[in-house]
Amino acid sequence: MSLISVGTMAFDAIETPFGKTDRIIGGSATYVAYAASNFVKPVQQVSIVGNDFPQEEMDELSSRGVELDGVEIVKDKKSFFWSGKYHLDMNTRDTLVTDLNVLADFDPVIPVSYQGAEFLMLGNLDPKVQLSVIKQMKQRPRLIVMDTMNFWMEIALPKLEEVLKEVDVLMVNDSEARQLSGQFSLVKAAKVIMGMGPKYLIIKKGEHGALLFHENNVFFAPALPLEDVFDPTGAGDTFAGGFIGHLARTKDISFENMKTAIIVGSAMASFCVEKFGPTRLKEITKADIDERIQQFVNLVNFDFSLTSE
Amino acid sequence: MSLISVGTMAFDAIETPFGKTDRIIGGSATYVAYAASNFVKPVQQVSIVGNDFPQEEMDELSSRGVELDGVEIVKDKKSFFWSGKYHLDMNTRDTLVTDLNVLADFDPVIPVSYQGAEFLMLGNLDPKVQLSVIKQMKQRPRLIVMDTMNFWMEIALPKLEEVLKEVDVLMVNDSEARQLSGQFSLVKAAKVIMGMGPKYLIIKKGEHGALLFHENNVFFAPALPLEDVFDPTGAGDTFAGGFIGHLARTKDISFENMKTAIIVGSAMASFCVEKFGPTRLKEITKADIDERIQQFVNLVNFDFSLTSE
Repeated sequence: MSLISVGTMAFDAIETPFGKTDRIIGGSATYVAYAASNFVKPVQQVSIVGNDFPQEEMDELSSRGVELDGVEIVKDKKSFFWSGKYHLDMNTRDTLVTDLNVLADFDPVIPVSYQGAEFLMLGNLDPKVQLSVIKQMKQRPRLIVMDTMNFWMEIALPKLEEVLKEVDVLMVNDSEARQLSGQFSLVKAAKVIMGMGPKYLIIKKGEHGALLFHENNVFFAPALPLEDVFDPTGAGDTFAGGFIGHLARTKDISFENMKTAIIVGSAMASFCVEKFGPTRLKEITKADIDERIQQFVNLVNFDFSLTSE
Repeated sequence: MSLISVGTMAFDAIETPFGKTDRIIGGSATYVAYAASNFVKPVQQVSIVGNDFPQEEMDELSSRGVELDGVEIVKDKKSFFWSGKYHLDMNTRDTLVTDLNVLADFDPVIPVSYQGAEFLMLGNLDPKVQLSVIKQMKQRPRLIVMDTMNFWMEIALPKLEEVLKEVDVLMVNDSEARQLSGQFSLVKAAKVIMGMGPKYLIIKKGEHGALLFHENNVFFAPALPLEDVFDPTGAGDTFAGGFIGHLARTKDISFENMKTAIIVGSAMASFCVEKFGPTRLKEITKADIDERIQQFVNLVNFDFSLTSE
C-alpha cells in the first residue's frame, strides 16, 4: 500500500519567541515523510535537493522506509532555503528569505518503480508541477491529496483550478479557503471549493484545530492545547503526513475513516511543534503516538447519554 | 433543584454586517434565563430594571418558569443600555454606548424564597455585587459559576480576586484568561487561574470553541460551524445558561458531566447567534435542542478503534 509524497526537501532558518535556528532540515516532503512513515512503508519520495543536503538525513529517511529514487540531486546548486520569524501568537509569521535554488528547476519524473501507488500526497508546489505528477501516473491513485497556498491563487489561479479538478482532498488554511472561495464563512467557502473539484476539503486553523468537509457533512478536530508551541514550522505538512499515512495504512478512504485520519494528523502535528523543525518527529515512538491519540480522545469525548431526559 | 441567576436585564442596540437593531431585549441574566429554563425550573432571577422594561418580556420569562421575585423595578429610572457594533469577523466589536442607568445602584437582595438554591450563576457584574450575593446565601450552593470581564481586572482586581476564592467555576474568554493570569499559553493561564480559587476554568474562544480545565484535565468543545453568525450578542451568557442548566437538571457536578454541560452550552449558543438578541432562543423547542446536540456529537465523534494496528 504505497504512498507517493511530492514536495520540497530544504533548509529552514527559524526564529520564534523561544529561540532561533540558522539552518535546520525542512521542506514539506520531509515532514510528510517523517509523519507518514510511522504508518505506512514505503513512502515514495519525490523531491529535489542541492549538493548541500546531508547524506545522514537521506540515510535517516531511508532507515524509516522512505524511498529516495524520486529525489533528484543537483550537483552544482544549493537546496531550497526558507527563513521566517514567528510572532508571539505563533499564528502569524514573516518570511525573511526565500531562496528557490534547485526548486526553480523542479520538474519531477516519477520513477517507474513508483507506478501503481494507491495514495498520492501533493505538497504545496507550483500547480503546474502538481499537474505534471498526476499526468505521469499510469494508473490514477485511489486517493490524491493536495496542499496549496495563497501565492498560487495569486499568480497561477487558472492552473490551480485545473489541478483542483483532478484531486480528491484539498488542504488549505482558513485564510486560503476564504481567498480561494471569496466567502468569509468557512461553511460557505467549503461549498464553493468542493464545487471546484475536491470531494473533501480540510481547512486547517492552526491552534484552533481543523475542519473536514464532505458533501453536507462536517467534522472538527481540535489542536491539542499545549503549554508551549515552540515552533509551528512543518506542522501543516506533518498533519498531512499523519492524515494520508493513516488512510494508506488502513486502506479505507471513507469519510468516517478520514475523521480518524484527521485526529492522527493532529496528533502528529502536536509533536512537530514541540521542538525546532522535525527534531521531535525523529524522537517519538509508536507508544508516544498511541498515547497522544488517546489524549485527543479524552479531549473531545463526552457522555452523550446525559443530554437526554 | 433550583438555580439562581444574577445579572443584567437590559436593552441593547446592535449593529452587525448583516443588519441593525436599535432596541432589543438583552442583558446577561436574560440570556442565562432563556437558555437554562429549557433544562431546569425554576430559574430564580436576580436583577434590576427601570420603568421601561416591557411587561410582556417579564410575562414571557415567567411562562418559562423564571421567578422574578429578585428583580427590582426602579420606577424613576431607565434600564441598563448597551450599544455595540461588530466587525466582519464577528470576533471583535466596538462598544458605542454604555448607559448604566439602574445598574449604577444595583445592590441585590436575595429573596428569602430563593434561599437553599443549589446552583448559583453569577453573571458579569461588579465583583463587589457578586461577593455580596455569595455572602447572602445562608447555605452555600453546591456549585457557584461566575463570569467576569477585563474591565473588572483593570479597576477592581483585589475584589475580583476575593470573589475568585469563593467560586467553583470561572468562565472567561481567551484574552481575559491571558490578562488575568499574565500568561500567553492558555494551558499555563489555566494553571495560574485555578491557583486563584476556581477548581474549574472555562475559556471561551467564540467561533473557535471552548476549553474546560480541571486539575490536569482538559476538555475541548468546538463551536458549530455555521453558514452565518448573524449576531454574537449574548452567546457567552447563553452558553453559561445551557451549561449550568444542564448541571442543575442532572444534579451531577462531576468533571465528566461538565463536559456534556459544555456541549449543551455550545448548542444553546449556536442558536443564539442565528438571530438578533434572544429572538432565536424564544423560538426553539426541545426537539430543536436535541437535534442540535446530535450535530455536535457528529461534529466531533470519530472511531478510535481504527487508530490501533
